Amino acid sequence: MKAVQVVGYHENLRMTEVPEPEVTGPWDVVVKIGGAGVCRTDIHILEGQWAEKSGVTLPYTIGHENAGWVHAVGSAVTNVAEGDKVIVHPLITCGLCAACRSGNDVHCAASAFPGIDTHGGYAEYLKTSARSVVRIDDSLEPADVAALADAGLTAYHAAAKAARRLRPGDRCVVIGAGGLGHIGIQVLKALTAAELIVVDRNPDAVKLAVSIGADHGVVAEGRQVEEVLDLTGGAGAEVVLDFVGEGGATRDGVGMLRRAGDYHVVGYGENIDVPTIDIISTEINFIGNLVGSYTDLCELMVLAAQGRVRLHTTKYPLERFQDALDDLGAGRIRGRAILTP
Amino acid sequence: MKAVQVVGYHENLRMTEVPEPEVTGPWDVVVKIGGAGVCRTDIHILEGQWAEKSGVTLPYTIGHENAGWVHAVGSAVTNVAEGDKVIVHPLITCGLCAACRSGNDVHCAASAFPGIDTHGGYAEYLKTSARSVVRIDDSLEPADVAALADAGLTAYHAAAKAARRLRPGDRCVVIGAGGLGHIGIQVLKALTAAELIVVDRNPDAVKLAVSIGADHGVVAEGRQVEEVLDLTGGAGAEVVLDFVGEGGATRDGVGMLRRAGDYHVVGYGENIDVPTIDIISTEINFIGNLVGSYTDLCELMVLAAQGRVRLHTTKYPLERFQDALDDLGAGRIRGRAILTP
Amino acid sequence: MKAVQVVGYHENLRMTEVPEPEVTGPWDVVVKIGGAGVCRTDIHILEGQWAEKSGVTLPYTIGHENAGWVHAVGSAVTNVAEGDKVIVHPLITCGLCAACRSGNDVHCAASAFPGIDTHGGYAEYLKTSARSVVRIDDSLEPADVAALADAGLTAYHAAAKAARRLRPGDRCVVIGAGGLGHIGIQVLKALTAAELIVVDRNPDAVKLAVSIGADHGVVAEGRQVEEVLDLTGGAGAEVVLDFVGEGGATRDGVGMLRRAGDYHVVGYGENIDVPTIDIISTEINFIGNLVGSYTDLCELMVLAAQGRVRLHTTKYPLERFQDALDDLGAGRIRGRAILTP
Amino acid sequence: MKAVQVVGYHENLRMTEVPEPEVTGPWDVVVKIGGAGVCRTDIHILEGQWAEKSGVTLPYTIGHENAGWVHAVGSAVTNVAEGDKVIVHPLITCGLCAACRSGNDVHCAASAFPGIDTHGGYAEYLKTSARSVVRIDDSLEPADVAALADAGLTAYHAAAKAARRLRPGDRCVVIGAGGLGHIGIQVLKALTAAELIVVDRNPDAVKLAVSIGADHGVVAEGRQVEEVLDLTGGAGAEVVLDFVGEGGATRDGVGMLRRAGDYHVVGYGENIDVPTIDIISTEINFIGNLVGSYTDLCELMVLAAQGRVRLHTTKYPLERFQDALDDLGAGRIRGRAILTP
Repeated sequence: MKAVQVVGYHENLRMTEVPEPEVTGPWDVVVKIGGAGVCRTDIHILEGQWAEKSGVTLPYTIGHENAGWVHAVGSAVTNVAEGDKVIVHPLITCGLCAACRSGNDVHCAASAFPGIDTHGGYAEYLKTSARSVVRIDDSLEPADVAALADAGLTAYHAAAKAARRLRPGDRCVVIGAGGLGHIGIQVLKALTAAELIVVDRNPDAVKLAVSIGADHGVVAEGRQVEEVLDLTGGAGAEVVLDFVGEGGATRDGVGMLRRAGDYHVVGYGENIDVPTIDIISTEINFIGNLVGSYTDLCELMVLAAQGRVRLHTTKYPLERFQDALDDLGAGRIRGRAILTP
Repeated sequence: MKAVQVVGYHENLRMTEVPEPEVTGPWDVVVKIGGAGVCRTDIHILEGQWAEKSGVTLPYTIGHENAGWVHAVGSAVTNVAEGDKVIVHPLITCGLCAACRSGNDVHCAASAFPGIDTHGGYAEYLKTSARSVVRIDDSLEPADVAALADAGLTAYHAAAKAARRLRPGDRCVVIGAGGLGHIGIQVLKALTAAELIVVDRNPDAVKLAVSIGADHGVVAEGRQVEEVLDLTGGAGAEVVLDFVGEGGATRDGVGMLRRAGDYHVVGYGENIDVPTIDIISTEINFIGNLVGSYTDLCELMVLAAQGRVRLHTTKYPLERFQDALDDLGAGRIRGRAILTP
Repeated sequence: MKAVQVVGYHENLRMTEVPEPEVTGPWDVVVKIGGAGVCRTDIHILEGQWAEKSGVTLPYTIGHENAGWVHAVGSAVTNVAEGDKVIVHPLITCGLCAACRSGNDVHCAASAFPGIDTHGGYAEYLKTSARSVVRIDDSLEPADVAALADAGLTAYHAAAKAARRLRPGDRCVVIGAGGLGHIGIQVLKALTAAELIVVDRNPDAVKLAVSIGADHGVVAEGRQVEEVLDLTGGAGAEVVLDFVGEGGATRDGVGMLRRAGDYHVVGYGENIDVPTIDIISTEINFIGNLVGSYTDLCELMVLAAQGRVRLHTTKYPLERFQDALDDLGAGRIRGRAILTP
Repeated sequence: MKAVQVVGYHENLRMTEVPEPEVTGPWDVVVKIGGAGVCRTDIHILEGQWAEKSGVTLPYTIGHENAGWVHAVGSAVTNVAEGDKVIVHPLITCGLCAACRSGNDVHCAASAFPGIDTHGGYAEYLKTSARSVVRIDDSLEPADVAALADAGLTAYHAAAKAARRLRPGDRCVVIGAGGLGHIGIQVLKALTAAELIVVDRNPDAVKLAVSIGADHGVVAEGRQVEEVLDLTGGAGAEVVLDFVGEGGATRDGVGMLRRAGDYHVVGYGENIDVPTIDIISTEINFIGNLVGSYTDLCELMVLAAQGRVRLHTTKYPLERFQDALDDLGAGRIRGRAILTP
């Protein structure tokens, strides 16, 4: 089959012919790819940023946001059958460790991460596990939801966790209305009645955020902290969801947070650097957020099927993978780039 | 009556004669002081560190850890009566704001703080509110529990919050086995079956911690992070309770924390300074902790009455306030110094 | 002022002239009534059903669902001022007992209940407490929201509690789409993405439920349990909210409940009568629901101001109180009857 | 190997020679039995009470409370190895359904129950799954903990769930100080500082309960409700844990429950039969409790290793199975009867 592989760092990806993956273990599932998201992480991989961390051996097939149709299943697989439309959770988890047994499978003690440390989905077929596939509604198409598998799932996880403490009358600031923030806003609208204040440097992103349900949009031009304080009667917001995490976003975000508020760290780049005296005197919390669990992905697919979460995509045939990466690198993609068969 | 007052910053406290406080409002409660804790904060006040923050007008009576007997009550007071033995919550709260209405009274929008921004308890009598007094068990004496009113209450609040997520088999690191840590350990023993690992620079403090129930003691001499990792099978602890917050404790503490762990900030001094990439990739949380609520104080007094929380005290007659402060400043106090009538 | 009073059981109410209530205590608030809800409980009071329970001395002014404008306040009142538009929580609570201190004020150990055990709001003025008044948004009118003070607040409390466990993909059955159910459905739509299945004997009520957002409507004509099971893939719903509680609703409702599901008891009349073996083998829960807290009322008023909760009302001038009661008794009211000045 | 089988209902069990179970699937684990608990359910099975429900084909090997040593493992098993000492969770669960994925494995949509619907542990070897075996501490012996696998696990599950809401100063009533109650009391002592009131008809059981930590013992001789109310200042207990569920226990238990209290149903026999008006006016909850999850069993084994949970056992060689059943039926067992190799 055709597969797009990392053949060297600081080199372009290369399309090549490789053997189709086969079912060898009882929980194996081979998925015929219907859509593979092109993610900024893919660019970072090529830059070598993940080389040491992942320990992957080159060449290997890239692509960690995948959806498609079940092509073959192992002997013990009962949750999906050949032909089912599925989205693929980014991790293959063991199902036996303490984390897996309590539903926190993203903290699995023995997970694999196709597209990062083993073969991924820029290909015709992907091998994953019964524990990683979620059937999607008939009304959804793999290429439309693929990018929800990782970026969207991270946003869902953080927004759903934040929503559990938000009550009517509470305010939630979303910093960053890009790919993740966009999903986060839709999730918050679906799960809470809290007032949403969206902050972004890009006026168009702010406009888009308001059009999908944000109650207030703030363009970050220097007065964003004051503006948020004004919008919250001077007290700040009960929750800040930071999808940026760099360029001063965290200092701003802490300044927008109310006493006893929760600061959700999702985006990354800079340090959280806050005096302990400020943390205790206002009793604020910093909450880390990794990608969501399998159960989170099931829930996100429900919101997608209900039409409550939508993603704008630009599709490229698999062969045009380089165009997709180039367009992403040059900032020419609105929403997400998706490779299709 | 006699009262010990701040008459100037960088000056000694002075005992003087002032009018007894009187009931003027319906929820007023006047307490005859049975014990007033001498706290490091009192020294900081004299150094002027709180001058701007509190905005208090000099002279005023210092002392924010108080217990005694109800001397007089306002017309609307129904929860205590003259003669009742009580401990005094450090804050006077309004009972009407959103925080008070939902049980988070320490975030009251209109609170007063006797001993900090109004007259406190280094005196014969203290004026507080019905909302601040907790009746204590017959078996407890005001002078023995007074220091639980603020320092102990902070430790209780953090330890009880941490305990809510600790399950049998989880590990909890306590950094700092001094005044607060000592209470925290006793609270954790009372509320959880988690394994307690106590870390302190002082070998005697570590010994004491083990004698009151810590499962492991680690003297911080440079290898404390490795030792804790060894004790936790390399994975780190589900919870770190940091009662120090300075001198590198936070970097150590983060190094001892497990994936998806909670880092409780209680002590203060340095900054939490952690890369956002580390926060999200391990999905850890930083939890701020202020003093406990009125309800927390009620619960702590139950543990005290059950003998599950005990505090070593050194008592001084009110007149010897200077000796108490001098001994505290010179590190000559084991446990807490208490002024008595 | 004019007031409508209970002068005897099994007698009509009588309008009479009584002295205006006056501020006598520091937390007193006198409200000029803008709307007083006419509730089925008022009919039950006249039938003597509450005589023994309330212990009220006749004559007294009836009416426990009140909203209006602040007319006068006691010396200690800081949360409202003369002229403020407010809705009135049905209970006057003490603010000092353990329940009040932890935010569960409806379990106050020393509460009063105007309209039930002391003078209520079928009058020009009502005396209540600072702890019972919630300022409402400028866009809301007292007569439009008055009926949310008790019936609506009960529905909000149960629906918001249920919503805390509902995740996308979960199903919630609402039994009874009358006054409370109608509010409950709107609250669930605002706070969750769960699928709502509404069951009622009245086809018009079912239609109305679907028009305000229920995903499925089931007319209870004998096959309602099977229909709900069909709609839930045979497994039943994660939550059943029972606003009926009589006429066999509870047996039906339990039959509609999934393993590990929550059955919220709101309506009343019959017994919950279920074999313990069934409760443990399916591990289901029965959750009691009383009227909501002060904080619940604040949250409900936010939803009302956002237009997410709306109530149909029929207004009568206070003098026409008998017509309102007659119309209610005869089933001629759509939504709620409200007495206005 | 030797196995004790059900060969017909209303007939005695029969020891016979059967083939040793073998590993056939990738997650299979064969356990050499070190101890098999003899449970009242085994007697009910012989009486035919489970015949229809389980649908099991006779003959089959009975015994659902098992512990021992790992004898052989399937190709995918990573959590245990040959020779490990283990206790066996009573259910074999699928690991793929929604319940398993969120940690609620006892609600698995496709579980098996060795000893009930397939071959159990009254034998030399038992076949189970990697998902069902929990390694136990070196200090524990299989025959000593086997009875914790089902009865003890149920008690742990209920007590640990109850403990999550119990705060210092709260009261918890335990109805029934027999096998389950005995474990429940030890668990509550380990996890909470709540005051424990134990109620039983048997004065010896009450004495034993007090000796292992109950704060108050009440012999149920007719005045038990009044006695509990007296012990709780007239208000009742925040939690009632009912390990009896028959003979009027539930009516008594509800009478002992405080406003907003939780009634945990564990024992079974009679109906919960309570007016809905009482449920809503006091806002009480009834909480169902089934056996605990795999994670619960891990936690219980921690408490056992810490010496916080101990079980008295009487051991019989496997061949003397009939004596064990006879002694159990005749009430001659103190603690639990265990069959050993």
